[in-house]
Amino acid sequence: MMRTRPLKVALLGCGVVGSEVARIMTTHADDLAARIGAPVELVGVAVRRPSKVREGIDPGLVTTDATALVKRGDIDVVVEVIGGIEPARTLITTAFEHGASVVSANKALLAQDGAALHAAAGEHGRDLYYEAAVAGAIPLIRPLRESLAGDKVNRVLGIVNGTTNFILDKMDSTGAGYQEALDEATALGYAEADPTADVEGFDAAAKAAILAGISFHTRVRLDDVYREGMTEVTAADFRSAKEMGCTIKLLAICERSADGTSVTARVHPAMIPLTHPLASVRGAYNAVFVESDAAGQLMFYGPGAGGSPTASAVLGDLVAVCRNRLNGTTGPGESAYADLTVSPMGQVVTRYHISLDVADKPGVLAQVATVFAEHGVSIDTVRQQGKDGEASLVVVTHRAYDASLSGTVEALRKLDTVRGVASIMRVEGE
Amino acid sequence: MMRTRPLKVALLGCGVVGSEVARIMTTHADDLAARIGAPVELVGVAVRRPSKVREGIDPGLVTTDATALVKRGDIDVVVEVIGGIEPARTLITTAFEHGASVVSANKALLAQDGAALHAAAGEHGRDLYYEAAVAGAIPLIRPLRESLAGDKVNRVLGIVNGTTNFILDKMDSTGAGYQEALDEATALGYAEADPTADVEGFDAAAKAAILAGISFHTRVRLDDVYREGMTEVTAADFRSAKEMGCTIKLLAICERSADGTSVTARVHPAMIPLTHPLASVRGAYNAVFVESDAAGQLMFYGPGAGGSPTASAVLGDLVAVCRNRLNGTTGPGESAYADLTVSPMGQVVTRYHISLDVADKPGVLAQVATVFAEHGVSIDTVRQQGKDGEASLVVVTHRAYDASLSGTVEALRKLDTVRGVASIMRVEGE
Repeated sequence: MMRTRPLKVALLGCGVVGSEVARIMTTHADDLAARIGAPVELVGVAVRRPSKVREGIDPGLVTTDATALVKRGDIDVVVEVIGGIEPARTLITTAFEHGASVVSANKALLAQDGAALHAAAGEHGRDLYYEAAVAGAIPLIRPLRESLAGDKVNRVLGIVNGTTNFILDKMDSTGAGYQEALDEATALGYAEADPTADVEGFDAAAKAAILAGISFHTRVRLDDVYREGMTEVTAADFRSAKEMGCTIKLLAICERSADGTSVTARVHPAMIPLTHPLASVRGAYNAVFVESDAAGQLMFYGPGAGGSPTASAVLGDLVAVCRNRLNGTTGPGESAYADLTVSPMGQVVTRYHISLDVADKPGVLAQVATVFAEHGVSIDTVRQQGKDGEASLVVVTHRAYDASLSGTVEALRKLDTVRGVASIMRVEGE
Repeated sequence: MMRTRPLKVALLGCGVVGSEVARIMTTHADDLAARIGAPVELVGVAVRRPSKVREGIDPGLVTTDATALVKRGDIDVVVEVIGGIEPARTLITTAFEHGASVVSANKALLAQDGAALHAAAGEHGRDLYYEAAVAGAIPLIRPLRESLAGDKVNRVLGIVNGTTNFILDKMDSTGAGYQEALDEATALGYAEADPTADVEGFDAAAKAAILAGISFHTRVRLDDVYREGMTEVTAADFRSAKEMGCTIKLLAICERSADGTSVTARVHPAMIPLTHPLASVRGAYNAVFVESDAAGQLMFYGPGAGGSPTASAVLGDLVAVCRNRLNGTTGPGESAYADLTVSPMGQVVTRYHISLDVADKPGVLAQVATVFAEHGVSIDTVRQQGKDGEASLVVVTHRAYDASLSGTVEALRKLDTVRGVASIMRVEGE
């Protein structure tokens, strides 16, 4: 039974994602109407540059006054694809105040102010959906929030940034160094002119905060996420990884502690075994591995960015939110009832691959091993290589607290016989 | 805000899946209550053998009278994990008539009578959810029905039967024949004593019907699904596949035709390139590849069967259905508005790998090639091998209609120089 009065949609932002949302809303209007149970009408598009020609978008809908658009009072759903903190935050809050539900793709804002935005949505009885904020087109928020609602998620391990995966994949497959691979990513449009948000892990950290919050029913803020970029990963690290039967990925990892009372969230480069499903995620693709009590190991794979894929996620949310409006209901809101402790990086337990430059003389290994033992870090394997008076020691540890490993490294640096710590890389996914 | 009156749940069936559903409902009662917004109470468990000891289940809840249980009138949600057509169908219909929503894991029933069951649910304003019916714990129904609701799915390509994937993986990795691999699967509990439903593709065909219906917003009945088992796949086929850079999987394939007006659904063994993500799905795992207009290529991977994984999917649905009841609403029902033509197998367009035993004499290739040409099937590559007066021809075609290929093979069999058609295998995923 089709309602004839259309649901009114306002679009904030008309860049790569927004223009694709508008295009699909027009070309697939009949399908959307059938799936929602009522037609949807795009009634306004807020942009910064109104003079830009936007194919397929009625110029009469375009406005630079986003605030007036969200204040109209007759908008059913506001789609926010501007990104960044302001003015997006104020516009979303204003949208709720004026009776609209919101679909957003804004990971930075959700990671920083998710709790406040959810509260505003709840206060006004409206929906806040944001599938597109994490891993683009890959259904992830909805599966975690709904499909796994009867399960207990223990771990989320994901490649959630396509730019860095492209770079690392390139380094892995060609032996290139970081800068060379970055240059290629930039030339091909996979990296922005200023790649900081990607390569320093800020983008992935925002996604980790969102994923951890949903997975563990606990508020996890961006500041709670340990973050290490991948700009210092070298071709030598990839050679070390290969010797271990591993590759290197920038991972977002959200984990419940063994005793179940606390959680951690972190982003850093890590070695993972070539046999792990995440190891074969190529190019700019994303993939997220989820481990839960009952379901076991699940993986979700797909394009993590781009106009069309992100628009697909936005429109899936739009359909859900519109259905909810027609039914006079809302979907699941924030779930933070578990309120677990969010522990700092020092509490993480994992394995480490450490390369040391050492003096090539007897007794060095004994000295180094003693330092590990004193800090409670148990060694799995050691490999010594010497040439021309120089030598290197590669140590792979058993599982240890990150704090213990940090203490170990600090003490190692003070040894006369240790000339330098060439690299420290965590080993995950085993 | 927690409602204190519990939602009442009746469980039909207490085997591997049912007992796990009951266990988690007890051990995770607080989590479920927090996520739903009200406690859930198991008020009855219908079983066939009441005398069997069921750890953790109050014997006072156990009954052999499933009909009386679903007729109680105070049940909010009936969870059906009996399987099979009857009595499950009558019990589910009765449950709707008495005001309950239903969560089912019953692929056979949904594939055969999904439309009627959805109609019954709609008539009584209740939900019918069945995430567990396809690919166990892997969120698939919800992503297709909700996350991709704003997108256009063109193709679903999946490994949806763990038993056959275990057998084929074993044949691939060890060179074993079908019977040997089946025996191992049986010994390890991956195959049932009577493996017909799995190895003949009936189980996968039911899932294909469900997936096609949801993906294309069109009713697809079990009878619409072309089905070919994998009992005739040989070690020689795997050797041929390897020469092609492929492996062999039993695939469920749901496709929209190139002109968009019709769809097909089929289950059969097929060669897929080793570079395809589905090629590396090992053991009893399932994985489903989805291609859509906007999202591009997505993959969902995880355990496709087993008590705990299936219970995870059932409980996710239970939470959703309970939330809907509290909100006085229902989730998305059947969506069949597109009403596309479901075409028979002859309309499928794909590539083929054909092995022929031929006489080892001049002119055979020309004869064979003529037959292909006469049927409009274009040849990609031919490889001739001769020894001891016998010879074989391996032909790989370009994309052709399945009907054309069938005509070709029929004509080839009539050639004096063709002693036999050793194997015909479709090539997918390129």
